[in-house]
Amino acid sequence: MIDGDRLLAGLRTLRGFGAEGTGVVRPTFSDPDMRARRWLRDEMVAAGLTARIDGVGNVVGTSPNHGPALLIGSHSDTQPTGGWLDGALGVVYALEIARALLERPDTSHLAIDPVAWSDEEGTYTSCLGSRSFAGRLTDDALTDRNASGESVAEAIERVGLAGVERARLDPARHVGYVEAHIEQGPRLEDSGDLIGVVTSIVGIRAVRVTVSGEQNHAGTTPMHRRADAGVVLFEFGHRVQQRLAKVAGPATVWTIGRAALAPGAESIIPGVASCTLQFRDPDDERLQVMEASIVELAAELSGRGPCTVSVERRRAPIPPTVMDPSLREHLRAAAEAHAPGRWAEMASAAGHDAMELAHVLPCAMVFIPSIGGVSHAFAEDSHPTDIVRGAEVLADATLRILTDGHLTRTPAG
Amino acid sequence: MIDGDRLLAGLRTLRGFGAEGTGVVRPTFSDPDMRARRWLRDEMVAAGLTARIDGVGNVVGTSPNHGPALLIGSHSDTQPTGGWLDGALGVVYALEIARALLERPDTSHLAIDPVAWSDEEGTYTSCLGSRSFAGRLTDDALTDRNASGESVAEAIERVGLAGVERARLDPARHVGYVEAHIEQGPRLEDSGDLIGVVTSIVGIRAVRVTVSGEQNHAGTTPMHRRADAGVVLFEFGHRVQQRLAKVAGPATVWTIGRAALAPGAESIIPGVASCTLQFRDPDDERLQVMEASIVELAAELSGRGPCTVSVERRRAPIPPTVMDPSLREHLRAAAEAHAPGRWAEMASAAGHDAMELAHVLPCAMVFIPSIGGVSHAFAEDSHPTDIVRGAEVLADATLRILTDGHLTRTPAG
Repeated sequence: MIDGDRLLAGLRTLRGFGAEGTGVVRPTFSDPDMRARRWLRDEMVAAGLTARIDGVGNVVGTSPNHGPALLIGSHSDTQPTGGWLDGALGVVYALEIARALLERPDTSHLAIDPVAWSDEEGTYTSCLGSRSFAGRLTDDALTDRNASGESVAEAIERVGLAGVERARLDPARHVGYVEAHIEQGPRLEDSGDLIGVVTSIVGIRAVRVTVSGEQNHAGTTPMHRRADAGVVLFEFGHRVQQRLAKVAGPATVWTIGRAALAPGAESIIPGVASCTLQFRDPDDERLQVMEASIVELAAELSGRGPCTVSVERRRAPIPPTVMDPSLREHLRAAAEAHAPGRWAEMASAAGHDAMELAHVLPCAMVFIPSIGGVSHAFAEDSHPTDIVRGAEVLADATLRILTDGHLTRTPAG
Repeated sequence: MIDGDRLLAGLRTLRGFGAEGTGVVRPTFSDPDMRARRWLRDEMVAAGLTARIDGVGNVVGTSPNHGPALLIGSHSDTQPTGGWLDGALGVVYALEIARALLERPDTSHLAIDPVAWSDEEGTYTSCLGSRSFAGRLTDDALTDRNASGESVAEAIERVGLAGVERARLDPARHVGYVEAHIEQGPRLEDSGDLIGVVTSIVGIRAVRVTVSGEQNHAGTTPMHRRADAGVVLFEFGHRVQQRLAKVAGPATVWTIGRAALAPGAESIIPGVASCTLQFRDPDDERLQVMEASIVELAAELSGRGPCTVSVERRRAPIPPTVMDPSLREHLRAAAEAHAPGRWAEMASAAGHDAMELAHVLPCAMVFIPSIGGVSHAFAEDSHPTDIVRGAEVLADATLRILTDGHLTRTPAG
């Protein structure tokens, strides 16, 4: 139903914006990111759609056909050192499916609206574009900043989008959102399955742990007189592994991704030490237990003195998101048609824009295998046959959804 | 013998170059550092000396009197977030003693050469100025870089010192080097002593510990499939405390002052994690045992897998330095005269320029108490009476040294 060679060529072209070795450096609102968005807009227009870059950077295509329309897409921004398929895959799938279905006489009446969301990765603030589209973006998000200290509002001004209208969901037109993505983990590869139909997206919580001690000279301060914030952070970082392992389920993951000792000199006892600790699970109750366990360990270390250990949430908890049952049914049927007996239902361990859209629209997701389960790294890759198969499954499911007599606009919740 | 008010006023003026709150930010070759050096040079000239800023930034004063001359000084650069007395105290003592002795008819024939060394703190490379003066600076040190990536040679060019001759020890003139410093630790305050006469300077070693794992997505990579470099670094940082405590002596100290997880994002499993570990002791054999213990722990963690842990020396080991017995004798006599029964002999737990000069000249050091033992921090301070008393002790010792019939030029070794 789709043109596999054209699909792969599109992915390779998109990779060219910010390519670095086998990976891509295309953070939101960077020069490569904006050039990629303009290219995507032009491709959509060339495919016969209307398309524009909206006030937060979303590339929003609109089919010339009347609704009901299916939104299909993902994000085109990358992690600071990202792979070439994370986000890009789902965006180019959307472009190709919209184009292919318009070209075929038997499907040219169907309305596919492809979209490339802005800043899913949180270079400034996570899921910026999908939050805006879903009407869930609060003003304070516009003051969130990237690592260089630039705010969302300043970046929008810099790239020339100030005053440009933000695209919004059209309840009279949009009946659902489907997103394809690389799995980013080893589940499909390990089981030999070729397609993953997502049941739910895991909930995510993240805390910042800060140890406050006393900065001092690393030579002249006797060991018994120290309040070394670093020593306590190392103890916390080591012992929290064992604590969390005790309460973990089969799908639980946790990560300390950032840590810093301040002021950070070889000859100075750190006065402050901090880290971020992120944890994910499909079960919100387990996330609550994990957070309590982290707070408890911090209180133990704090109570022992002389350093104090505080725990604060890095952001509001993201609860697990259940995918829409009827969209999932169509994805299952399409998966069975293109990969008979070799597809699986699975939870998504990564966050996605579908989490935001699910508040206002039925949503579903489909995964293809990631080689070695690697993602958020230059080595991220998938086999071309898996890439093309995934697009065929999503195109087939799109047909099934748009020709289903029971289209619903009830949010998946 | 000295003018206490003028001394304190000089210290306060020097503090003004780079003052930030109660502390000072005056790293080597920064704008405040160079302005401070020009001020020191001008003060020396106003005191009747010749003075210049040499090719590595040392401010070198020369008494109009013939030798034998006593070098007195310390460094005028600070840590990234430093205190107002670390280095500055000894520099302003030298200025005041040179000036006061020139002013008094009975001492105006004595030769005091005051000096303010460059980059003792190692913003670029530690003890840059004293190494140069002692003829111990190797060419490769000029390629050492600060945290912004600027090399010593580039900085020298930037501040306009390229091509300026570097001052060198004059064996026919200089008979010794004495340096006053704040203790930077709590030893004197704890015992109620007012003056410390330094017996030796501890040896220092430093290693960088690097853990190599596998960067990956923090959501989609199951715990059992991870090679999380951060987790291993936290374990190393925690367990090394217990290992080193087992082999420590009463004066041993060790510090992890820097740590980093790379790439350092909340949602990415660190592929590389590293820290610096510095350790000090008056006994070189103990330092050897400590280093072996660190290497052993790294090998254990590395052998367990899946991450590898490597240990490399950050710099050549600095062996303990013994102070010159005859200079120490004069310092002891001066201490007893100005603080009868309230002075102590002690090892210096911090490194100092005297370590470098001791290779080529008899050296000695005197300490005054630090309030709360705090140093390398904005809160660093000493009582004004202690500051003035220290200068009187050093002036008295200077007289005793320069009027001693048995001046020697044998290095202390």
